[in-house]
Amino acid sequence: MGADKRRVRCIQWAIVFVILFFVGFIIGWFAKPMPVQYEKPSPSYLHEFLDEMHAENIREHLRKFTRLPHLAGTLQNLRLAEQIQKEWLAFGLDSAELVWYDVLLSYPNGTKPNYISIVDQHGEEFFKSLLAEPVPEGYEDLTDIVPPYSAFSAQGKPEGDLVYVNYGRTEDFFKLDREMGINCTGKIVIARYGKIFRGNKVKNAMLAGAKGIVLYSDPADYSAVGVEPYPAGWNLPGGGAQRGNVLNLNGAGDPLTPGYPAKEYTYRFSPEEGLGLPKIPVHPIGYNDAARLLKNMGGTASPPDWKGALNVSYNIGPGFSDEFKQNKVRMTIHTYNQVTRIYNVIGKIRGAQEPDRYVILGGHRDAWVFGGIDPISGAAVVHEIAQASGKLMQRGWRPRRTLIFASWDAEEFGLLGSTEWAEDNAKILQDRAVAYINADSAIEGMYTLRVDCTPSLQTLVYDVTKQVGSPEVGEEGMSLYDSWHKRDNWTDNRDAPRINKLGSGSDFEAYFIRLGIASARARYTKNRKDTYSNYPVYHSVYETYEIVEHFYDPTFQRLLAVARVRGGLIFHLADAPILPLNCLEYAHALIQYAHGILKIAQKHPEAMQRYTVSFDALFSAVNNFTNAANDFHQRLKKVDTTDLLAVRMVNDQLMYLERAFIDPLGLPDRPFYRHIIFAPSSHNKYAGESFPGIYDALFDIESAVDPARAWDEVKRQISIAAFTVNAASNTLNPVA
Amino acid sequence: MGADKRRVRCIQWAIVFVILFFVGFIIGWFAKPMPVQYEKPSPSYLHEFLDEMHAENIREHLRKFTRLPHLAGTLQNLRLAEQIQKEWLAFGLDSAELVWYDVLLSYPNGTKPNYISIVDQHGEEFFKSLLAEPVPEGYEDLTDIVPPYSAFSAQGKPEGDLVYVNYGRTEDFFKLDREMGINCTGKIVIARYGKIFRGNKVKNAMLAGAKGIVLYSDPADYSAVGVEPYPAGWNLPGGGAQRGNVLNLNGAGDPLTPGYPAKEYTYRFSPEEGLGLPKIPVHPIGYNDAARLLKNMGGTASPPDWKGALNVSYNIGPGFSDEFKQNKVRMTIHTYNQVTRIYNVIGKIRGAQEPDRYVILGGHRDAWVFGGIDPISGAAVVHEIAQASGKLMQRGWRPRRTLIFASWDAEEFGLLGSTEWAEDNAKILQDRAVAYINADSAIEGMYTLRVDCTPSLQTLVYDVTKQVGSPEVGEEGMSLYDSWHKRDNWTDNRDAPRINKLGSGSDFEAYFIRLGIASARARYTKNRKDTYSNYPVYHSVYETYEIVEHFYDPTFQRLLAVARVRGGLIFHLADAPILPLNCLEYAHALIQYAHGILKIAQKHPEAMQRYTVSFDALFSAVNNFTNAANDFHQRLKKVDTTDLLAVRMVNDQLMYLERAFIDPLGLPDRPFYRHIIFAPSSHNKYAGESFPGIYDALFDIESAVDPARAWDEVKRQISIAAFTVNAASNTLNPVA
Repeated sequence: MGADKRRVRCIQWAIVFVILFFVGFIIGWFAKPMPVQYEKPSPSYLHEFLDEMHAENIREHLRKFTRLPHLAGTLQNLRLAEQIQKEWLAFGLDSAELVWYDVLLSYPNGTKPNYISIVDQHGEEFFKSLLAEPVPEGYEDLTDIVPPYSAFSAQGKPEGDLVYVNYGRTEDFFKLDREMGINCTGKIVIARYGKIFRGNKVKNAMLAGAKGIVLYSDPADYSAVGVEPYPAGWNLPGGGAQRGNVLNLNGAGDPLTPGYPAKEYTYRFSPEEGLGLPKIPVHPIGYNDAARLLKNMGGTASPPDWKGALNVSYNIGPGFSDEFKQNKVRMTIHTYNQVTRIYNVIGKIRGAQEPDRYVILGGHRDAWVFGGIDPISGAAVVHEIAQASGKLMQRGWRPRRTLIFASWDAEEFGLLGSTEWAEDNAKILQDRAVAYINADSAIEGMYTLRVDCTPSLQTLVYDVTKQVGSPEVGEEGMSLYDSWHKRDNWTDNRDAPRINKLGSGSDFEAYFIRLGIASARARYTKNRKDTYSNYPVYHSVYETYEIVEHFYDPTFQRLLAVARVRGGLIFHLADAPILPLNCLEYAHALIQYAHGILKIAQKHPEAMQRYTVSFDALFSAVNNFTNAANDFHQRLKKVDTTDLLAVRMVNDQLMYLERAFIDPLGLPDRPFYRHIIFAPSSHNKYAGESFPGIYDALFDIESAVDPARAWDEVKRQISIAAFTVNAASNTLNPVA
Repeated sequence: MGADKRRVRCIQWAIVFVILFFVGFIIGWFAKPMPVQYEKPSPSYLHEFLDEMHAENIREHLRKFTRLPHLAGTLQNLRLAEQIQKEWLAFGLDSAELVWYDVLLSYPNGTKPNYISIVDQHGEEFFKSLLAEPVPEGYEDLTDIVPPYSAFSAQGKPEGDLVYVNYGRTEDFFKLDREMGINCTGKIVIARYGKIFRGNKVKNAMLAGAKGIVLYSDPADYSAVGVEPYPAGWNLPGGGAQRGNVLNLNGAGDPLTPGYPAKEYTYRFSPEEGLGLPKIPVHPIGYNDAARLLKNMGGTASPPDWKGALNVSYNIGPGFSDEFKQNKVRMTIHTYNQVTRIYNVIGKIRGAQEPDRYVILGGHRDAWVFGGIDPISGAAVVHEIAQASGKLMQRGWRPRRTLIFASWDAEEFGLLGSTEWAEDNAKILQDRAVAYINADSAIEGMYTLRVDCTPSLQTLVYDVTKQVGSPEVGEEGMSLYDSWHKRDNWTDNRDAPRINKLGSGSDFEAYFIRLGIASARARYTKNRKDTYSNYPVYHSVYETYEIVEHFYDPTFQRLLAVARVRGGLIFHLADAPILPLNCLEYAHALIQYAHGILKIAQKHPEAMQRYTVSFDALFSAVNNFTNAANDFHQRLKKVDTTDLLAVRMVNDQLMYLERAFIDPLGLPDRPFYRHIIFAPSSHNKYAGESFPGIYDALFDIESAVDPARAWDEVKRQISIAAFTVNAASNTLNPVA
């Protein structure tokens, strides 16, 4: 009994001891002051974030933003900016502001229309091209639909014989000159749209001496087989035409303020000194009008691959066939340039732990007309990502790094809004920007995903697409990655979905190619095997909400998938403690590019020997980079993730890796293209070229007057590339 | 008793409870895991560091490093590099390595000497200038003393009439051309050294059409009053002459590889394309020889301020006076350029907490001959700082950030070693470099301290000099700051010691003006009121150890003081948790500079009105900067110094502030001078110009053919400056 009692008392005391110890422990635990420390992000937020995005919301954003035209520089596009600003704030972003620049834009004269005509020997115009596209149903009451025009065309009324120049590529003009003996000097040339950027067609025409250039959409390039013209289908109707700027800016932004933001006090070149402005009239027409111009062409017959799908001969000219010889073609162009205020919307969510690290999601808002596809399918997606971010913040989430949402203006006029903002914030972005995700048109086809990105983002793109479901009917439960992989395997490279190099043609340009910020773009696209160019109604009045709803994405599941890809990218980039940038992928890409450029040079084996051209330095540099990347990757695995400064240090190395490829001296004759590994092709800004300096020097070999000098330039470019790759590998080496 | 017993037991239990609680507390306290946290640096280390430096050590380093000539590109200078490398490692630096580049150097021909002669009408040379300087006592046995020459001179034997062009400044040639009507085309000109960089004299002579230029040291500029020539005093003897390069590199580094490091695989321009090489022969002579050349000059008389201190008329010419008219002057120059390997020594102490932040102490090692002053007085100081750092490390100290010690090669040939290394490491330095402290000659006079630095380092310079004692006899117990203040008050600016703008002429150039790294230099100097130029024996064979020991710093206390200033600067920069960079001082400087440049423009009030030239945008930008700097400074006071990422963030803002003034497009015609606030004057690289782009545009106004265009360029430069200052203020704003 006594023993029992004692045992009870013992237990009582033991309990008291334990409680006391525990109280002491707890107090000791909490009494100890903690240095500032940050929580790990909860991975579950990613799925909540992706689940917060809804197809129905995207549909509504698209519907709402495409009711009216939103041409850059118009009041309606300012109103849309204000609306987006308001809604971003309502979603819960920390800030959203309008940022304006005064840039050179270009508009048709409101009272003197632009057109192409055929004139008889008395100068009488007996045929005139359409002054406007037939307006689609439901939009008849709108008065501010800009007619098709080539922005920044020179004014004038050139008149002369027509020459058909196929796509107006360098090789097309070479063929005309060297093989066919056709001189374009003083002629008006007509080129079909497609294959390359229209501004390059205009540049080539100018170099060939043409006094004007007509651009048209051939059904071979702008009609898919078995598809009806809009509104019955998604093909371009015969009266539709493709608007677009015809600048050759090479990344300069506003033509009057290259290198600096176009603010109120900024020095402006005179209009004649403006950068990249064409010196000849340019005008776009539809294929009905083109058929009329091409119908009676005389002169040389076309080679088979120059023939489009119109029921005409595609004779090259110059001029009409004998019976119509006195008839000439006349261009009447009154388009004028004007410095005009444009507005970006910049929204921010301040980072919780690293507010001085930026992840940018940017896409343009301005459209040629309604922008049902370009750009509002993309802007609607950005809007939904902003909304989902706001909802997540209401639940206590805040990204580790700062998120910046951008609605750019005047992309259609030469990437002006995005480039001016990049110029305005160059220093800050250079110091702080982790990545730029572009958000132009989210859909341009109905087949599968298309991604263009810097090599270091490839792994993240794959990771994210594995987290997103396929939007295709019959693929429920399948990941977007698998759906994409099935449809577009990167067979020449690896067994994974294809990823393309970044060229230009959208707002990532200044961020990636001038500033060296890791960039990516993703959208839904057509089958690569389809022969039509882009999507047929591109930059026409037929880019409506309805074309998306009826044909491209009736359930809005494809846009949702794109939203989740773009959103997933910025989520990971903003929230992951270690930046999801993979330097090993960069090494892998550099090896491939080096072999690719060597292969091009090796087409000239005798010259390479004669001029002692060697790629050894480049391969040695790529090898150094590969070793540095491997070592870095090994060290990265061992980083103490509780050591905030150690994490920051490796993240800075990852962030600044892309920056290391920037040469402030720029590429030859393209001072604002500063990325030594990637630039748009000199002959087509849509396409990305690797080692563009070497590539251009090799391209010039063929037409070089002084081959020794031309090969010397190749050697110089190899040396610069080798140096740059070595410098980049040094940034990955241990820091001290 | 029972109560007592109970009380005792109570106390016993209480003790047990307390112990238990305490044990729990302690265990709780220590059981709690702590994130990685860094210790605060101990401020006491600064004084230990300064106290570790000793005058006697500096004397020994100087003695040891000046026994032999160490011309860049010679075996002896490589041996010295190896010695320094070895000793730095012995001091305890973590690493020390030789880093080589193959750059263009220039040497006299070993068998065909350079000289200036007077020839009679038969072409017979009846006077020849000295082929070498008389060698000072104790050095007679050395065979490798390079004779006086102008490095990178063109080869040739021009012969003609002499024209005396005073200092060869722009204004001197203007006066000759516009006021005196003297045409230098086809003439050989003779200019006295002083006032501006010799390379600018040569450029001006070339622009004036001269076919050769003779440079000489006039006693008016190279002899102090009441001082004997060396070895009895520290004046230049009549047989001494100033060596030096005559390039116009404008920051390009190696003339054959501008923009890129001169490595084994680097593309090199052909020698004819080399940057900044003079196209005419150039040669330096002493004042004995100069007196002979000037003695019989005819033609126009000199204005009074053109007369030096030789006993000659200083007639301007062209040519000799009537009785000697047939005599001509001939230059015989065989100097040749050669790509040669040079070696920097790079030593590192890895930072404990932020190894990816660099503080650089760099100075050159190559000397024209012994380099007793230039540069070894500086190199000896760097050596002592490295040794003191090593000693501190033995006691457990390690700097928060990485310290880099650099011994540059080939400074005398155009800052080549430092510039090539900057080019080689541009990306890493841009990302990581906190500051660059230059360590050329530590003494050039016996009067007081001289500091040139970026505005943000002014406060630190004052702080450090308050921690260092005056080296002057009779000022025991007085701080260097007070001694300096007393001798050189910055009266036109504030009641504090004078601090100058950084120009060029030493190795900080690429770091400060190309890369935008906050920089400073400090040395002991002469009284500003003394009229002689620099120190008289500059770049002559008389720059020996003995001239320092006998005249400049017999006790080595002045060199010690300079060592403590340079050392104190790098100590604070490497160790202070918050970077000791003061953005308020930058604001203060910008205000002054803006007023200064406005004042220059206002000399043309009518033109300013006619061409609507306004400085409003610049003043508005400076105002924005001032506000941003004030706000930043307020926020800085409230930073939670236990928050490692918050500290890193403000430090990054401070570090990148200097970078924000860099424009990758560079200054007009000077692409490697990229700092919009500071560059050396276009007319004298020793002097720093603020707002150099605006300054140069204003300078060109006077000789402009098209004033409208010239004023337009002024407006463009104002706009660029305003933009840059605004961009810099944005880097100080809250980050998100």
